[in-house]
Amino acid sequence: MIPDDAIGALGAMLGERLSTGKSDLALHGRSETWHAEMPPDAVCYPRDTEEVSRIVALCARYGVPVIGWGTGTALEGHASAPRGGLTVDFREMAAVLEVRAEDMLVRVQPGCTRGALNTELRATGLMFPVDPGADASLGGMAMTRASGTTAVRYGTMRDQVRALEVVLPDGRVIRTGTLAAKSSAGYDLTGLFVGSEGTLGLVTELTLKLHGQPEAVSAAVCAFPSTEAAIETVILATQMGLRPARIEFVDAATAAILNAHDGGRFEEAPHLLLEFHGSDAAVAEEAERFGDLAAEAGAGGYRWATQAEERTALWTMRHRAYHTILASRPGSTAVVTDVCVPISRMGDAIERARAEIAASPIPGPILGHVGDGNYHAILLVDRGDPAELAAAKRLSDGMVAHALELGGTATGEHGVGLGKLHFMEREHGAAWDVMGAIKRAIDPEGIMNPGKLVRQN
Amino acid sequence: MIPDDAIGALGAMLGERLSTGKSDLALHGRSETWHAEMPPDAVCYPRDTEEVSRIVALCARYGVPVIGWGTGTALEGHASAPRGGLTVDFREMAAVLEVRAEDMLVRVQPGCTRGALNTELRATGLMFPVDPGADASLGGMAMTRASGTTAVRYGTMRDQVRALEVVLPDGRVIRTGTLAAKSSAGYDLTGLFVGSEGTLGLVTELTLKLHGQPEAVSAAVCAFPSTEAAIETVILATQMGLRPARIEFVDAATAAILNAHDGGRFEEAPHLLLEFHGSDAAVAEEAERFGDLAAEAGAGGYRWATQAEERTALWTMRHRAYHTILASRPGSTAVVTDVCVPISRMGDAIERARAEIAASPIPGPILGHVGDGNYHAILLVDRGDPAELAAAKRLSDGMVAHALELGGTATGEHGVGLGKLHFMEREHGAAWDVMGAIKRAIDPEGIMNPGKLVRQN
Ligand SMILES: Cc1cc2nc3c(=O)[nH]c(=O)nc-3n(C[C@H](O)[C@H](O)[C@H](O)COP(=O)(O)OP(=O)(O)OC[C@H]3O[C@@H](n4cnc5c(N)ncnc54)[C@H](O)[C@@H]3O)c2cc1C
Ligand SMILES: Cc1cc2nc3c(=O)[nH]c(=O)nc-3n(C[C@H](O)[C@H](O)[C@H](O)COP(=O)(O)OP(=O)(O)OC[C@H]3O[C@@H](n4cnc5c(N)ncnc54)[C@H](O)[C@@H]3O)c2cc1C
Repeated sequence: MIPDDAIGALGAMLGERLSTGKSDLALHGRSETWHAEMPPDAVCYPRDTEEVSRIVALCARYGVPVIGWGTGTALEGHASAPRGGLTVDFREMAAVLEVRAEDMLVRVQPGCTRGALNTELRATGLMFPVDPGADASLGGMAMTRASGTTAVRYGTMRDQVRALEVVLPDGRVIRTGTLAAKSSAGYDLTGLFVGSEGTLGLVTELTLKLHGQPEAVSAAVCAFPSTEAAIETVILATQMGLRPARIEFVDAATAAILNAHDGGRFEEAPHLLLEFHGSDAAVAEEAERFGDLAAEAGAGGYRWATQAEERTALWTMRHRAYHTILASRPGSTAVVTDVCVPISRMGDAIERARAEIAASPIPGPILGHVGDGNYHAILLVDRGDPAELAAAKRLSDGMVAHALELGGTATGEHGVGLGKLHFMEREHGAAWDVMGAIKRAIDPEGIMNPGKLVRQN
Repeated sequence: MIPDDAIGALGAMLGERLSTGKSDLALHGRSETWHAEMPPDAVCYPRDTEEVSRIVALCARYGVPVIGWGTGTALEGHASAPRGGLTVDFREMAAVLEVRAEDMLVRVQPGCTRGALNTELRATGLMFPVDPGADASLGGMAMTRASGTTAVRYGTMRDQVRALEVVLPDGRVIRTGTLAAKSSAGYDLTGLFVGSEGTLGLVTELTLKLHGQPEAVSAAVCAFPSTEAAIETVILATQMGLRPARIEFVDAATAAILNAHDGGRFEEAPHLLLEFHGSDAAVAEEAERFGDLAAEAGAGGYRWATQAEERTALWTMRHRAYHTILASRPGSTAVVTDVCVPISRMGDAIERARAEIAASPIPGPILGHVGDGNYHAILLVDRGDPAELAAAKRLSDGMVAHALELGGTATGEHGVGLGKLHFMEREHGAAWDVMGAIKRAIDPEGIMNPGKLVRQN
């Protein structure tokens, strides 16, 4: 509950840009996955940093929880409001502020989406590479340390965020990082805020690294006799120094669903989907070397897609895969796993997960960013069936336990939110207490996105 | 002063591996640059993590300052003991613990040097690329967020450290990070400890990323008509997506000193020194493209060094440059600047610095890692002359002030230590207070490397 005084003050400040309408609240309490709806008490739409600072200072005064909101595509209930409070939706702070072409940097507001940014950049010869399936906001992506299909070559949000402007939990505004390519001037606050899921402050501006649009692009698809053969090829390619821009794995179950529901023409076998970026010569060389490795591993049907349309069709299908898989079981919702393991152990880990899913009553196609050791099982459960949800969570817990045994992590890119909170102690041990100490140091009243990421008391 | 009880307890624990010998103390209070000697009260040489944990817990009980020590090559008095205390020298914890070739990872103890690691890796086809001039320890390099000549392609220590084991200021041992290539499981503690200069805890183990030894390597040297022409070439090459492994700049003054004192055969002009890594075809293509750009910028004498011996000679000369420059003025010591600026402004910034140095009585050749916008003026001052030292500091302060105006940083790779402390407030503003809050949260008694990095009270 937000005290009436506070609502009054916020209303006076924001006018129609403060909303307590039912549908607005419901929308901002919803998750893309199995999480229950947890709406805030109010939603606001600030227009600049100064306004955000005044909003947060006011919430601090009244002890009102503050939850940031980009596009709401995070998968673990990250932006829900389990303790009510005020959701700060950044859709009116979505501008591209400055492109510094020579420095290959861009300054954006947090509500700008990666799609909008790349549209704006098209004529400059530059691009922003991080690509989670969804057209997420750059603020949200920084906050979950997002990555996706292209991280294997370009890195994750950890690698792309050069500097931030942040409104602290008491309303102070700080800037972290600089425009320089590197710095040793003290603690890496930029890195600390990236991945903090809105629990340490609200991001009001980001300076991001850009990359040249590749001179040449080519894509390929190939079917493998086994998961191990596919993964072994990925490991060898990495050791040889090949740097595909994308190496996506889809298992036989995913291939079958894409065939049945999205016009795919895959063999029912594990596949790798690849993309290469570079000069004409470099792309040709890398693709040929990769093709040789795949052939040695027994891969068949190495198909090329050098035409832009074919490539677009391929990656559109890949990007739609989550929704296609959901639609393959009408009325279902999903528990999405996100483990990331050392790549030497990935073949085993995927096979074990596949076997456990096969032995369960739950469909769970597996796909992922295998160049990084990161993959997802989309565990499809009947929306109304608590037994299925429990079974899916057991499968997910088993995959995480195994990943941790192998030296991996519970979440490679989706983040903690509510859904991965119960793994944090197991993954981090005493280091989780250090995270708690940092949280208390920066947000002593615990108003920023409460209920998430750190130990709850 | 360390209380007698504490010395007694440490002696009982460590025997001969605790030292209070004068020369040992002096050695551990010395800096490579102009900083005065500030010795600790005792030095110890632990053998394992458990011992480090007991040492730190004991120091915590007695409030004794604890200073980590790798090889003591940091340039800003980082490892000196302005408040006395116990220096923990990691030379007996210098093992390579495990090479995970398929994961391209290595686990090392903090005292292992980058040279020793690369010797150990030689037969594996892998290498550790970060290369500050000195053969520094990997623990020390992580703590200063070191980089050097190869960061332009491979990144800095921020990019290479996958996981850490850390002894906290109360003696607890934590592990940060995992063996997975990426993670979104909470705050990036690995990134927070990297660059923390031993002010948050002692690092007792590091897991580092490795890279394949390049199939082909070639190097080149070319002279430019002006600094701007050299920098413009670097900017264009970066925008084209070329990825040299090294792009080093030396100004005309440096070239002259290398000619006079180390057998160099340079024109007296600004130069770029380059190295390319990759497949045979990729190296040939990149080098040719770079050569074209350099020629268009009016560069002359693009000389190739494809033979390993020529390359070694070139980079040995570059690595020795600091000591060669020092030796060019007998009896001198140095104030070494380390600004890093957005690369679009680097030409201007270097020219301005060159002009200011020329107008001063102090010799100050400039060289640096221009692919990252990072360069050093080696301001040579007479060891006994306070007026020269003051003049050099004024020049250095001016370069930093200008770099900050341009959106850069006071230190690109050397770190804060004592020598850059007075710039921190100006560079970070209120964000420096956040660093202070983190320091207090993790080290409430302030025993870890006191006097460095955060605001002193
Ligand atoms: C179909 C589908 C596929 C996906 N695939 C991927 C994938 O491949 N890789 C991947 O990494 N993710 C993937 N995701 C997850 C999601 O897209 C990412 O987590 C994304 O980063 C969320 O961005 P958002 O703008 O939607 O953030 P939101 O969901 O709005 O918010 C995410 C978190 O950040 C906080 N927040 C948002 N903005 C701010 C701000 N300005 N200041 C402070 N805190 C803020 C929120 O409170 C919340 O905790 C996928 C999602 C879907 C639906
Ligand atoms: C000729 C020369 C050239 C150089 N060129 C470069 C360059 O190009 N790029 C660059 O980045 N640097 C350069 N340096 C600086 C120096 O080599 C780096 O700063 C290096 O990272 C220091 O490593 P070290 O092992 O000597 O650390 P030390 O000097 O021993 O310590 C550095 C800091 O880390 C702390 N520390 C050390 N070990 C630990 C540990 N295990 N746990 C916690 N804290 C610890 C110390 O207390 C201190 O604060 C150069 C130095 C010289 C002398």
